[in-house]
Amino acid sequence: MRVARYQEADSVRVALVEGELLLPLPPGTEVLSVLTASPTERLAIRAGAETAIPLDRASLIAPLDPPAMRDFVTFERHVQGVHSSVGGGAAGIPDAWYEAPAFLFMNPHSLTAPFGEVPMPPHTLAMDFELEVAAIVGRTVRDVDPDDAESLIVGYAIFNDWSARDIQRREMQVNLGPSKGKDFANTLGPWITTPDELEQWRVGDRFDLRMEVRVNDELIGEASLAEMGWSFAELLVHSSRDAWVGAGDVLATGTCGGGALAEWWGRRGEQSPPPLAVGDVVTMTVEGLGTISNQIGPIRSPGHRVPAARPLSPAPGA
Amino acid sequence: MRVARYQEADSVRVALVEGELLLPLPPGTEVLSVLTASPTERLAIRAGAETAIPLDRASLIAPLDPPAMRDFVTFERHVQGVHSSVGGGAAGIPDAWYEAPAFLFMNPHSLTAPFGEVPMPPHTLAMDFELEVAAIVGRTVRDVDPDDAESLIVGYAIFNDWSARDIQRREMQVNLGPSKGKDFANTLGPWITTPDELEQWRVGDRFDLRMEVRVNDELIGEASLAEMGWSFAELLVHSSRDAWVGAGDVLATGTCGGGALAEWWGRRGEQSPPPLAVGDVVTMTVEGLGTISNQIGPIRSPGHRVPAARPLSPAPGA
Repeated sequence: MRVARYQEADSVRVALVEGELLLPLPPGTEVLSVLTASPTERLAIRAGAETAIPLDRASLIAPLDPPAMRDFVTFERHVQGVHSSVGGGAAGIPDAWYEAPAFLFMNPHSLTAPFGEVPMPPHTLAMDFELEVAAIVGRTVRDVDPDDAESLIVGYAIFNDWSARDIQRREMQVNLGPSKGKDFANTLGPWITTPDELEQWRVGDRFDLRMEVRVNDELIGEASLAEMGWSFAELLVHSSRDAWVGAGDVLATGTCGGGALAEWWGRRGEQSPPPLAVGDVVTMTVEGLGTISNQIGPIRSPGHRVPAARPLSPAPGA
Repeated sequence: MRVARYQEADSVRVALVEGELLLPLPPGTEVLSVLTASPTERLAIRAGAETAIPLDRASLIAPLDPPAMRDFVTFERHVQGVHSSVGGGAAGIPDAWYEAPAFLFMNPHSLTAPFGEVPMPPHTLAMDFELEVAAIVGRTVRDVDPDDAESLIVGYAIFNDWSARDIQRREMQVNLGPSKGKDFANTLGPWITTPDELEQWRVGDRFDLRMEVRVNDELIGEASLAEMGWSFAELLVHSSRDAWVGAGDVLATGTCGGGALAEWWGRRGEQSPPPLAVGDVVTMTVEGLGTISNQIGPIRSPGHRVPAARPLSPAPGA
């Protein structure tokens, strides 16, 4: 099953995707109840769909409002690329990376439409994307047993973690990870695909899905989802260890190898390809999951800045 | 006004706090609608309260379910203490700290009861607390104008960001900030106090509230909320720059000076006072906001660990 959401006048509608058609489900249908439906319930849901409409006539929005989003760093090749310009350690990757899948919580209010404009953030000269895949957790859980984890993941979608690299680099010096460099926009979509649709690409506990990102039709990076250092089931076991993971929470892989401009900047020692500019179109395709495509729009934020910290002690001579 | 929540059989109740009494509000009352009520609406809410019950007979829970929680690092004295053992720069504080208030998103599912037990997380030998104050944002906003920001903050509460320092230290080497070191528990409470209740402590755009934390009745740290490097209004302007901040979102100050064991470990070069142990009671009091107190319970998580990352290339000789 593929489950999408679209805007119809003032209301948000949920629909099944079949080929080039959207099959609207009755108003009030919850995306998560469709994703967690049993085979019998699926038949009833399908039977209750309204008249199909062409997919290309609908205005898709993010297929979910996740209560929380965790973004991991699971692709070794990406970490290697980003760290290679910085140096240190074998191939520049810290030992801690291999030990456990590190993650950060993202702004859950940041999701944009799968084909919508993403305005250029203010105060950046290094706008970038990150090609990732997101898994959706079906119910609220804590301390998930490794044997149960895979069955709790009810869908997958493409995820683009838009990043302002110069802002991110500066604020990461405070050692808490990025904040304003990554809180303005994330794109999830074009719809959510249930795991049973991906069985043909299964290799053990991974899915061998080809991932590609293009800027203005030029191929920038490609990878396989099977290159993940941990499986999605392992990401869920780790996330839920002594902590709540909510129904509908997103677990994103982090950037795949080659899936961000910053990785190429790290490998090449120069900003080539250049940072994204207004008008650029970023298109991501993941086998089995579809395509999302977003154009960078002009700055739409007034970009209010706060003053520097008020120091505790007056500066010498003040 | 002071607004609390408590558990009554299977349901969550909202109540006003007056002295040592709880005044239950009708079932279905939303905390945020009380916090954002106009003076006239407040009179109607107060008039609609049910028969008062003694505060000490109620089982308080977290006063809010925040859609998102941002935790900042706004206290210079804390940053100085933590960094002093690491060295580098003037007093060890990176220049980037002064430029803008860095923050991280927290697990929004982590809130525990103001007087509840906090189980010891598995796999840590360095359990710690962080004494903070949280502000609650009244409505969903983006690009808040500096002149409007203070009026959008509708309440304050004590915030304890429980931290497993050894886990945190290890995962921060991946450079994305802490994840499992801080996602298991946060305590918010005991209730939410509206800004008008704090006017007597106002000094410009700060509140001079005395903050104290005790372990088993021994005073560990004390500070004033007025020592913040940025005001709460500035934290909101910064958070909302080109990004959505949700109605009910929490903006927490980060640890005040002296408000965490790790700060003393940094200053002293040894783990003194010692990390928290099972049975320890951590009590935080902030003038005008009340007191929260939690005992560390035994480990309750099975502590499932995931295997190390599957490397892309086989190790030499494998």
